[in-house]
Amino acid sequence: MSGVALHDLSIAEAGRRLRDGSLTSVRLTQALLDRINALDGALHSFIEVTADRALSDAERADRELAAGRDHGPMQGVPYALKDIYNTAGIRTTCHSKLLLDHVPAQDSVVAAKLAAAGGVLLGKLATHEFAIGGPSFDLPFPPARNPWNTDHVTGGSSSGSGAAVAARLVRTAMGSDTGGSIRGPAAYCGTVGLKPTYGLVSRRGVFPLSYTLDHCGPLSATVEDAAITTQVIAGHDPRDPASADRPAPDLCSGLEDGVAGLRIGLPRNLWRDAEGLAPETAAALDRLAEALARAGAVVEEITLPDYDLFNACGRVIMLSEAFTIHEKDIRERPQDYGALFLMRVAAGATLSAADYIQAQRLRRELSVAVNQVALRRCDLLLTACTLGPAPAFAEFPHDRAGPMHIQTLPFNVTGNPALSMPAGFSASGLPLSAQLVGRPFEEALLLRAGRAVEKITAEWGSPALPELGAVT
Amino acid sequence: MSGVALHDLSIAEAGRRLRDGSLTSVRLTQALLDRINALDGALHSFIEVTADRALSDAERADRELAAGRDHGPMQGVPYALKDIYNTAGIRTTCHSKLLLDHVPAQDSVVAAKLAAAGGVLLGKLATHEFAIGGPSFDLPFPPARNPWNTDHVTGGSSSGSGAAVAARLVRTAMGSDTGGSIRGPAAYCGTVGLKPTYGLVSRRGVFPLSYTLDHCGPLSATVEDAAITTQVIAGHDPRDPASADRPAPDLCSGLEDGVAGLRIGLPRNLWRDAEGLAPETAAALDRLAEALARAGAVVEEITLPDYDLFNACGRVIMLSEAFTIHEKDIRERPQDYGALFLMRVAAGATLSAADYIQAQRLRRELSVAVNQVALRRCDLLLTACTLGPAPAFAEFPHDRAGPMHIQTLPFNVTGNPALSMPAGFSASGLPLSAQLVGRPFEEALLLRAGRAVEKITAEWGSPALPELGAVT
Repeated sequence: MSGVALHDLSIAEAGRRLRDGSLTSVRLTQALLDRINALDGALHSFIEVTADRALSDAERADRELAAGRDHGPMQGVPYALKDIYNTAGIRTTCHSKLLLDHVPAQDSVVAAKLAAAGGVLLGKLATHEFAIGGPSFDLPFPPARNPWNTDHVTGGSSSGSGAAVAARLVRTAMGSDTGGSIRGPAAYCGTVGLKPTYGLVSRRGVFPLSYTLDHCGPLSATVEDAAITTQVIAGHDPRDPASADRPAPDLCSGLEDGVAGLRIGLPRNLWRDAEGLAPETAAALDRLAEALARAGAVVEEITLPDYDLFNACGRVIMLSEAFTIHEKDIRERPQDYGALFLMRVAAGATLSAADYIQAQRLRRELSVAVNQVALRRCDLLLTACTLGPAPAFAEFPHDRAGPMHIQTLPFNVTGNPALSMPAGFSASGLPLSAQLVGRPFEEALLLRAGRAVEKITAEWGSPALPELGAVT
Repeated sequence: MSGVALHDLSIAEAGRRLRDGSLTSVRLTQALLDRINALDGALHSFIEVTADRALSDAERADRELAAGRDHGPMQGVPYALKDIYNTAGIRTTCHSKLLLDHVPAQDSVVAAKLAAAGGVLLGKLATHEFAIGGPSFDLPFPPARNPWNTDHVTGGSSSGSGAAVAARLVRTAMGSDTGGSIRGPAAYCGTVGLKPTYGLVSRRGVFPLSYTLDHCGPLSATVEDAAITTQVIAGHDPRDPASADRPAPDLCSGLEDGVAGLRIGLPRNLWRDAEGLAPETAAALDRLAEALARAGAVVEEITLPDYDLFNACGRVIMLSEAFTIHEKDIRERPQDYGALFLMRVAAGATLSAADYIQAQRLRRELSVAVNQVALRRCDLLLTACTLGPAPAFAEFPHDRAGPMHIQTLPFNVTGNPALSMPAGFSASGLPLSAQLVGRPFEEALLLRAGRAVEKITAEWGSPALPELGAVT
């Protein structure tokens, strides 16, 4: 075996070694459990480490591979789940006091698919309360911390997923994305984050935040890891009303095909004058656009509707739907929620049916602008993801929403697939990011462009992950 | 030519005669214009008779047929439009003071399709104000009257369409159906009424009442007339967000194939204990079920969710969406609406985003009950349409909603195709009705069953339409 540490093996490379006999899943799994044990005291990325389940999954994977029963690229590969994904017999808390004793009887569809593919469940990951209320210190579990600087937030709400993958406690973890909850933590933590097309991945058994904005997808160490994970979890579910009845896509071929000839639109009007835009982020986007052009893409400036319009539209829909879901508990046991959750979601009570319907109508117009105009002209969009590096916890008083400037919500509103990619580092040593956006169900092309970005930014270099010491 | 009066010619028979040279469209059109002129003073079914346009359409149809340019079965055939269908250059009022001067620049999609098929536009038909506020005497046009007894209402809101077709002023007319506005007047007036599957017919250019409940469809003299009309207007419209992207169905073949072997579910629990159920209607439904069984159908009792649940769900959605559409005008010029409209629609202001979202979620459960349970077991449902004969105007004070008992709304909630069929007459000489419901996009089967019902009820006999005298 080469000198690469086990936690640095890509899913594909681990798969090769599991199949050539130079590695067992039990050994890989134990290495990650040891790493979690050593480092997660500083990160708080796991709410629960399912060590027994993981080792039993790993033993079965090894046994089956030895017997010639191969379930594909996730077999024997560790993964973890944001703690809003139901897991049969394993507590699923949504990071909330309300569900501290909630042990689901059934797996979520995604959890079941990863298990059926032979994956190894390492545990359940920290989030914000019900995927919206955080980062907070008034919840039953502490907030996850950013591996690049534990004084800084991970972004939310797939906060544990971002921290765990960035620290290589696991290569791939499930997040969920209602307004940016996959892409934000991926960006702040320097991992890849894919919000697939609305309808590609079943949400059944995942605690909802907003019925028509929620998406399930992975945060992963690399584009290839994200592609392998998404390949396993994608597919029609007739019992998720949003699920698209389409053949499963092929996401893993063609990743290395590059961007030559692709038309990439650059809607600078979204972020150029945005509050909170860091000059370093603006520069990284420009630098990336130039590099993509040198790699053969046709990069051209385009104009999208104002970000504020997407934001207003998405906020009304999210608050309306989140309030609908939590109305009864907000009435009956408000004291059991954290302050940030209540402050955000209770505002949904003020919205009228007409507000919601108008927002859904505006949504259609915005979707036309993105899909019938911009993505008719272009194959992909390159846009901002987070507008700067992760802020520090000190900027987030526990009873106040902090300044997380991020432009991910437009593609929850429109449902387009969107990929958050690392794009270099700030002078302060924190990850910067970019976002690629594709046409509905064209994840394969999106991931291919993401792989090209990955190659470009690899040349920009990266600091080493700092030593992690326990934080209390 | 046989002794059948021109206004009694079916569309198919008129088509044969137009093509064998024994009839011209101009002659057919003039006969109907004369009949409108003679009888509509008693019915008020037309808001505007477009005589010049009709004769010019007819001349063109004759000219084209003579030149061998045949646009199919509607060519040279008169039709009329509920006055919520935009017509280029022809005033479209929605039966409201608010739109008295509204002359659209463009045809609605349906109007354009009927014109392109060579049809002859006779005029624009009375409705309730904006398809909901009526029957009322405080509007710019009087309410339409029931040809079977002009002291009685036609039902709404395609009230002029029902009256005009029943009195054979025209064989086929467009209505719209948000909660039963095609099937109600069809039932009260003794015509066929088809609410197609949600998404089969474009609603673009038709004034909306409720975005997710509105359907366009015909009221026609016979099932065959309805099939021919629907065949022309069906089809995908990428600019109607609700339009289904499917191949056009074949609705006119197989109408005579009968019901042998079809499983027909009878959800008596919907109407058995309903307020307003006339014993004559209950008896007509039983008699029809028995006759269908004798014709070879397998008729079986099934149970659907309570009618009240469908009704609550549909009302919340309808009022929310209608209020959204009219909010600005209700604020700025309430005095221009009639009392019934305001009383009904202004209530939508009280509904919250959460009310609306919960209703949309209940809607999905109800749709599962109808489609995944009842219509998995059965091919069709036979249910009540109107629960009794048309009430008298005397029961409708102009500032009060009257007792129109009707069970059509469930299939706006679920989007299934539903066909209102005449089913004999009350002792008072007014039409009774039944409703057939099919699986989504199975209009062909639904119409075939409707044709079987038509043959059965033809044997029950029918009184002659009364002489119509002018009402003022």
